[in-house]
Amino acid sequence: MDNFTFYSPTLFAFGDGQAKTTGGLVRRFGGTKALLIYGGGSVKRNGAYDAVTASLKEAGIPFSELSGIQANPRSGKVYEGVGMVRKEGLDFILALGGGSVIDTAKAVGMGAVYDGDFWDFFSGKAEINGTVPVGTVLTISAAGSEGSNSCVITHENGNLKWSIPKSEKADIVRPKFSILDPRYTCSLPAYQTACGAVDMMAHICERYFSNTPDVALTDRICEALLKTIVDAAPKAMEDPNDYAARADLMWAGMLAHNNSCGVGRVQDWASHQIEHELSAFYDCAHGAGLAVVMPAWMEFVFTHDVMRFARFAVEVFGCEMNYAEPEDTARQGIRRLREFFRSLGMPTTLKEIEGAKAEDIPKMVAHRKEKPNGFPFGGFVKIGPEEMAEILRGTDQ
Amino acid sequence: MDNFTFYSPTLFAFGDGQAKTTGGLVRRFGGTKALLIYGGGSVKRNGAYDAVTASLKEAGIPFSELSGIQANPRSGKVYEGVGMVRKEGLDFILALGGGSVIDTAKAVGMGAVYDGDFWDFFSGKAEINGTVPVGTVLTISAAGSEGSNSCVITHENGNLKWSIPKSEKADIVRPKFSILDPRYTCSLPAYQTACGAVDMMAHICERYFSNTPDVALTDRICEALLKTIVDAAPKAMEDPNDYAARADLMWAGMLAHNNSCGVGRVQDWASHQIEHELSAFYDCAHGAGLAVVMPAWMEFVFTHDVMRFARFAVEVFGCEMNYAEPEDTARQGIRRLREFFRSLGMPTTLKEIEGAKAEDIPKMVAHRKEKPNGFPFGGFVKIGPEEMAEILRGTDQ
Repeated sequence: MDNFTFYSPTLFAFGDGQAKTTGGLVRRFGGTKALLIYGGGSVKRNGAYDAVTASLKEAGIPFSELSGIQANPRSGKVYEGVGMVRKEGLDFILALGGGSVIDTAKAVGMGAVYDGDFWDFFSGKAEINGTVPVGTVLTISAAGSEGSNSCVITHENGNLKWSIPKSEKADIVRPKFSILDPRYTCSLPAYQTACGAVDMMAHICERYFSNTPDVALTDRICEALLKTIVDAAPKAMEDPNDYAARADLMWAGMLAHNNSCGVGRVQDWASHQIEHELSAFYDCAHGAGLAVVMPAWMEFVFTHDVMRFARFAVEVFGCEMNYAEPEDTARQGIRRLREFFRSLGMPTTLKEIEGAKAEDIPKMVAHRKEKPNGFPFGGFVKIGPEEMAEILRGTDQ
Repeated sequence: MDNFTFYSPTLFAFGDGQAKTTGGLVRRFGGTKALLIYGGGSVKRNGAYDAVTASLKEAGIPFSELSGIQANPRSGKVYEGVGMVRKEGLDFILALGGGSVIDTAKAVGMGAVYDGDFWDFFSGKAEINGTVPVGTVLTISAAGSEGSNSCVITHENGNLKWSIPKSEKADIVRPKFSILDPRYTCSLPAYQTACGAVDMMAHICERYFSNTPDVALTDRICEALLKTIVDAAPKAMEDPNDYAARADLMWAGMLAHNNSCGVGRVQDWASHQIEHELSAFYDCAHGAGLAVVMPAWMEFVFTHDVMRFARFAVEVFGCEMNYAEPEDTARQGIRRLREFFRSLGMPTTLKEIEGAKAEDIPKMVAHRKEKPNGFPFGGFVKIGPEEMAEILRGTDQ
């Protein structure tokens, strides 16, 4: 086990009806005038908007609104939010939605207390040194941004889908509180539920596939989460109102990415890096892109540590261990993962992503090169431009 | 799954050599003049005292010392610490040791900002409303107090071993930071290593045995932790310097009690309640008392939910499931747990605890009655005076 720091100071209020605590929590964490950020009509249809705004009013917290945040959130809305916070002297940012809304809120929070361009934190020009406090009311189980120190924004200028660097400084962006009411996820389209399940499984796998020895405890916690998602996601697809399944997915999604599963080990993150190019090029859902990339990445790398992939097959999918030929078990686990994604209605080949074509692969690799520290990436197996191209070619079936 | 709040804002700095960050962390959390609390010579022998005080000096943090804290920590030292904090205007409390030292630090922290007697928080006369910030440098993997909102103190006046009530208010006592260096636990006597393993297993079992339905994810996380402890504890006993085993135990001990395993479910805590009387009467180590009480409690309650105990047997100890007679599997799990405790050198019967005798059982039950809300207790099966006596009689083998 490697040395590590783990700091997840977010207060989680979980369960049916918790949105009524929003106003009190904003106050508890020092907010007096809030910026409420959300996407579109879904939070108005599922009752979340009404519950949250009623609670803010009851607590005497005035708020301004920034809406229209979309999947793969864009820099434009961040600049708009930063302007509002500054002009109106707002002292709390409340994200109501999923990862895109929360990441926008985090970027606004960082940007509002910084003299320069918020993008400096993404391009590596500046280190995060503070934020307007952010709280969240989660309505999609997927990105885990409600408990994480991650933030991914796409800059319209150059179509750059970049993250803030992983460092202890990034802990500044962890939300003060997150309200997780599984009921709000019951009205999600099946496609989004599936994308969410893939995303959280990816967050775990990016940590699980590691070369660090002696990480028995986090290995088992990763498997506990993966098994739970494999069990709960089909239930939520079959009966969208299955509260127990929705609750399992929602808590698993948070734990998948607050780094409970990743402490003390070198993590991988290659599939995420490759997927970011897919969604930058085709604006596909992050989860859908991951469903295409992840099994292809696994097929490319599994010979690097056959026994770890065999363990994945046995512990997560209940495959029988082939002690004579562990490679066979390892391959079976990857096959089962791809079948699982397909059973959720996810694409698993490049051509299933709208507009995607193999001819773009060199362009995606070239685009990746523009990123600061673009190559190599991947903590489990180092991925250079050639390897990235080969993994992407593996998705062209 | 029940609604819940989860708030574990402690910063954990884990690994070899992390004590050198102590001074910086005290500063980060606002400390300028500290009270350093510890037990006896062991922290001086294992290098922890030197590393911590060097770091405080380097960071320019003056400190006073309160030493001599013993197992089952006493109120006298708390009063002494409260007096020192007030008189010397100290603004940070640093615990260097295990659960007893940390609980003393927490009680001093609460008491120092309260006009009345700190015991009011334990007797239910007053609600916790603040604390001097507390940080910890852990040297024993056991109590989990480094990440928990628990605090147990024995009042010399009446030999009352009482806890602060479990409530959201208790989150105030969670440490600001905890430094977890597994190396400091390598020099523990084998008996203390074993007591620690039992204590953390108990913290998990008290949460695992629950009547709340639909808690699949936390069930699996509990099992992940229990399996890890069952695997790591014998390794640490066999080779005290096995860093990987010590690291597994140290992180498992924290997760066992920061409530990662207990969210969304009614918890039990009957074994702990009964054990508190054992250690109040005989001043036995908490872990040793639990090794005696827990299997006896299990034998008394397992028919209440045979399948849960069968699952425990299969998932934690790898027992084969007897589908025809699940009771048989359930019993086997309890037997395996007791054998495991014995293999660690723990007592599993009353008479193995120095001074303990069956004739005291009625006195222990009577003593329990003096406690606020003394009976019934237990979230899995309600335990009244008769049941407590019967469980204790079950330990007299």
